[in-house]
Amino acid sequence: MTHAPNLSTADYQRIDAAHHLHPFTDFKALNAERSRVMTRGDGVWIWDTDGNRYLDGMAGLWCTQIGHGRREIADAVHRQMLELEFYNTFFKTTHPRAAELAEVLAELTPEGLNHVFFTGSGSEANDTVFRMVRRYWTLAGKPDKQIIIGRRYGYHGSTVAAAAMGGMAGMHEQAGMVPGVHHITPPYWFDFGGDMSPDEFGIWAARELERAIDELGEGNVAAFIAEPIQGAGGVLIPPETYWPEIRRICAEREILLVVDEVICGFGRTGNWFGSDTYGLKPDLMPIAKGLSSGYLPIGGVMVSDRVCEYLIGDGGEFFHGFTYSGHPASCAAALANLRIMREEKVVERAASEAAPYLQAKWLAFADHPLVGEARMKGLVGALELVPRKPSRRDRFAPVGDVGTIARDISFNNGLVMRAVRDALIISPPLVITREEIDELARRVEKTLDDTHAELKKRGWLV
Amino acid sequence: MTHAPNLSTADYQRIDAAHHLHPFTDFKALNAERSRVMTRGDGVWIWDTDGNRYLDGMAGLWCTQIGHGRREIADAVHRQMLELEFYNTFFKTTHPRAAELAEVLAELTPEGLNHVFFTGSGSEANDTVFRMVRRYWTLAGKPDKQIIIGRRYGYHGSTVAAAAMGGMAGMHEQAGMVPGVHHITPPYWFDFGGDMSPDEFGIWAARELERAIDELGEGNVAAFIAEPIQGAGGVLIPPETYWPEIRRICAEREILLVVDEVICGFGRTGNWFGSDTYGLKPDLMPIAKGLSSGYLPIGGVMVSDRVCEYLIGDGGEFFHGFTYSGHPASCAAALANLRIMREEKVVERAASEAAPYLQAKWLAFADHPLVGEARMKGLVGALELVPRKPSRRDRFAPVGDVGTIARDISFNNGLVMRAVRDALIISPPLVITREEIDELARRVEKTLDDTHAELKKRGWLV
Repeated sequence: MTHAPNLSTADYQRIDAAHHLHPFTDFKALNAERSRVMTRGDGVWIWDTDGNRYLDGMAGLWCTQIGHGRREIADAVHRQMLELEFYNTFFKTTHPRAAELAEVLAELTPEGLNHVFFTGSGSEANDTVFRMVRRYWTLAGKPDKQIIIGRRYGYHGSTVAAAAMGGMAGMHEQAGMVPGVHHITPPYWFDFGGDMSPDEFGIWAARELERAIDELGEGNVAAFIAEPIQGAGGVLIPPETYWPEIRRICAEREILLVVDEVICGFGRTGNWFGSDTYGLKPDLMPIAKGLSSGYLPIGGVMVSDRVCEYLIGDGGEFFHGFTYSGHPASCAAALANLRIMREEKVVERAASEAAPYLQAKWLAFADHPLVGEARMKGLVGALELVPRKPSRRDRFAPVGDVGTIARDISFNNGLVMRAVRDALIISPPLVITREEIDELARRVEKTLDDTHAELKKRGWLV
Repeated sequence: MTHAPNLSTADYQRIDAAHHLHPFTDFKALNAERSRVMTRGDGVWIWDTDGNRYLDGMAGLWCTQIGHGRREIADAVHRQMLELEFYNTFFKTTHPRAAELAEVLAELTPEGLNHVFFTGSGSEANDTVFRMVRRYWTLAGKPDKQIIIGRRYGYHGSTVAAAAMGGMAGMHEQAGMVPGVHHITPPYWFDFGGDMSPDEFGIWAARELERAIDELGEGNVAAFIAEPIQGAGGVLIPPETYWPEIRRICAEREILLVVDEVICGFGRTGNWFGSDTYGLKPDLMPIAKGLSSGYLPIGGVMVSDRVCEYLIGDGGEFFHGFTYSGHPASCAAALANLRIMREEKVVERAASEAAPYLQAKWLAFADHPLVGEARMKGLVGALELVPRKPSRRDRFAPVGDVGTIARDISFNNGLVMRAVRDALIISPPLVITREEIDELARRVEKTLDDTHAELKKRGWLV
C-alpha cells in the first residue's frame, strides 16, 4: 500500500493493466499498449513518470479552468477536512460550505436561476434533470409531458438515462435506451449542412425542434436539452442563427429548456456561461467540471424560479439525491476555485486576451492541407481533418482512425488534444498565457504535419 | 464569498433555504422548519453551529467507518492535490493513486474479483452495473439476456437506472421506469413472513428468484442484484437460510450475481464485505461509501474474472465512464482510509469488540413496549416500532409518521438515527468505543421513552 511515487513506470503500468478498467477504453488494446502514468501538474503542464512534459490542451477533461496545482484549493480542502470532512445534507441538515456555495452559484448564474440541487458529477446532474423535468410537469398538472428531446452527438454524461438523452449511438447500443427520448439533428454545418449556407442551416437545424414537437405532440413533450456548444460530440459551434431561432420556438411552445453547461459553464465560451454567450434563459442548467476546476468531484443542477414554483410547492418529498450531494470538501474546493476565478478575473481575461490570441492562430490552421475546417469560440475549438480539399464531403473511411492517429501523434509531440471522429479538439485551461499559446500552436502545427506525413506514407490521402 | 464559519446559524439557515435544494426532501416543509447546520466532526461526534453535539449513529450516511476528522486522510489528500490534483483516466492514461488503489482493492475483495471500474459514487457504480451486465451477455453471445431482477425495498442509488433496479415505489413513480427490470419480495420476515418461521420464510423468499427466472425465461434474465443486508430499505437482515438458497439457485442457473456492497462493504457486517459474511461469490460488486469512509466522493464496480474474460476480450471499446473515474484526490483519500482500516484492524476489532457489545444492548430493546423487533448484524441494526405487542401485524397507519417523529426526537436527544417507514435504523462508525456505545444506548432508550410518551399523548397507541 504505497503512496509515494516510488514505483517504476513499468510497475505502475503492470498493476494498472492487471486491475484497472479505464473509462471509454478498449481494455485489451490498452493492456497490450500500456498506459501513460501522469504524476504531476502545474498550470497548463502535466508530467508523466518518465519525466515527459505535456501541454494539457484539454484542461484535464474540459475542467481545469484555473490550471493545475493551485495550492489555495488544496489548502481550502485541507482546512475543510479538518473541520468537517463529511456530513450529509439529507434529513433536514446542511453545513456552511453547501449553503455558501449555493448562494455564490445563485449570484454567478444567469438571472432566474436561484437554487441548486447538488450532485457528484455532470452525469448525476443530467440524470437528475431527467427526473426533475418529469416531476415538474406532473406537479404542473400535465403528467403526459414526458418526452425529452435531445440531439445527435449530444453528450450529457454516462449514466443510462444521461446517455439516453445524449446522442451517442455506441452508448445506446451497449446500454439499451430509456423510453421517452427523441433526438434531432445537431447544428453541425460541416457534416450536415449540405448546400445550405451556415446561417440557412442554423435556422433549418433549429426548426428540427419545432418539427419534432409537432410530430410528437406538444402535450407529450417535456423538455429540450442541449449544450450551448456540443463538446464531446466534436465541439460543434452552432451557426449564429441557431440559438435565436431555438429561443423563439421555446418562447412559443410549452416546453422546458435545459441548457447543459457542464462543459460550457465557468468561462469556456468567453462568458461565465454559454447561456450568457447565446442569450439563453435555462429552466434547468446542469453544471460540473469548471465548478471546481475538477479539483474535487462535484456537480449540480441550477433550478429556475419557474421550476421551483412547483418543485418547492405542495408536492411533498422529491425522492432523489446522492450521499455526496453537497459534499463539504467538494463544496470547499468549488468555493476556493470560484474565489480565484472572480478575484483574478479568469473568465474576463481569457475572453479579452487568451481567446482572441489563440483563435487567430487556430483559425489559420484552416490553410493546412489536412484541415477541412477550423472553428473556435472562447477557448474551445476543433479542426476537421479531411483527405482532400476544398470539399466538405470527402471524409476518411472508416471514420475515427485518422483522428486517433493524430491524437496519439499529438501526445507524442507533448500536446494533449482529443479526437472526436476525425476532428482534433481542444479546450485548454483558461489561464493559458500568450507564450503557452505560441507553444501550443507550434505543437498543433507539428502534429498536423506529422499526421499528414504518416497518412501519405500509408496512402490514405486522396 | 465567506469561507470561515463566521455567519450566524440564522444566516446559514436563511441562505440555505433561499438557494439549496436538499436530497430526498420536502423543500417547502424544510424551508418552514429550517435546517440544522453541521459544522464539525470528531470520531463518532458531530456538532452544529449552535454548539449542540450529536452522536452520529449513521456514520455520516453509512460511510464514516473510521469516524470523523482523521487528519491522516486530510494530509494525504493535501499531498496528492499538490502533486496532481486531477487528471483523467481516459485516453490511455493513468496515475499512481488509481493504479495503487486498484491493486489494494483486488487484495481486499473476495477471491475472483481482481479488476475495478472506478466511479464517483455508489449510484454511478450501480448504474454502471446496469450497462455492464448487458454488455457481458452481448459479448458472451446471448444478447437476449437483458432482464435484471432486483428486490422490493432494494436500494441501489438514485440515478434513473439505479433507482429502477432498486425497489422504492416513490422513486419509480417520480422518475419513470426503465424497461427490463423485475422485482421480487425481499427476505423481510417481519413484514412479509406471515405464518412461516424465519427459516422457512428465508427459503421461500430465495425461491422467489427461482420462480421469477422460470416466469421470465432463463434465456431473458441477465442478473440478480441484491445487497447482502438491505440498508436504506430498513436494514432487512435475511434469515440464515436465505443466502445459501440463493447461492444454490445462482449455481444452477445461468445468471450473473451482482452483490451491492455500497453499504455492507468495508466492515459493516462484521467482515470486510457482506459477501464474506454470507459466503457469496459476486460476478459484479458495486462499492462506495466505506471505501473512502466518505472523506471524498468515490465509488467503483469490482469486476470478476468471469466477467472480465469477455469484457477485456475482443469486444472493442466499452463506451462508458465518468470524468472523475479514479479521481487522484479521491483515490488518495481511499488509500489513506484503507491504510488506517488495515493498520488499526478496524474491521476485526469492530467485529470482535464493538459489534457484540452493541448487539447485546440493541437486542434488549425488544423488551420496550414500542419495539416489535430488534435486529442487528455486525454494526447495522433496526428497531421496528409497533403500536401494540406481541403482534407482528399491528402497524401504525399511515406508515412513516411515527418513524419520522421518533427520528426527530432522537436528533433532539443528541443521537442521529434514521427512520425507514416506522423502523429506526442505525449504522455507527466502526470505531465506536464501549463508553460511546453505552451513551448511544442511553439515548436510544430515552428516544423510545419520549416517543412512547408522545404517541400516548396523541392517542396513537392501540
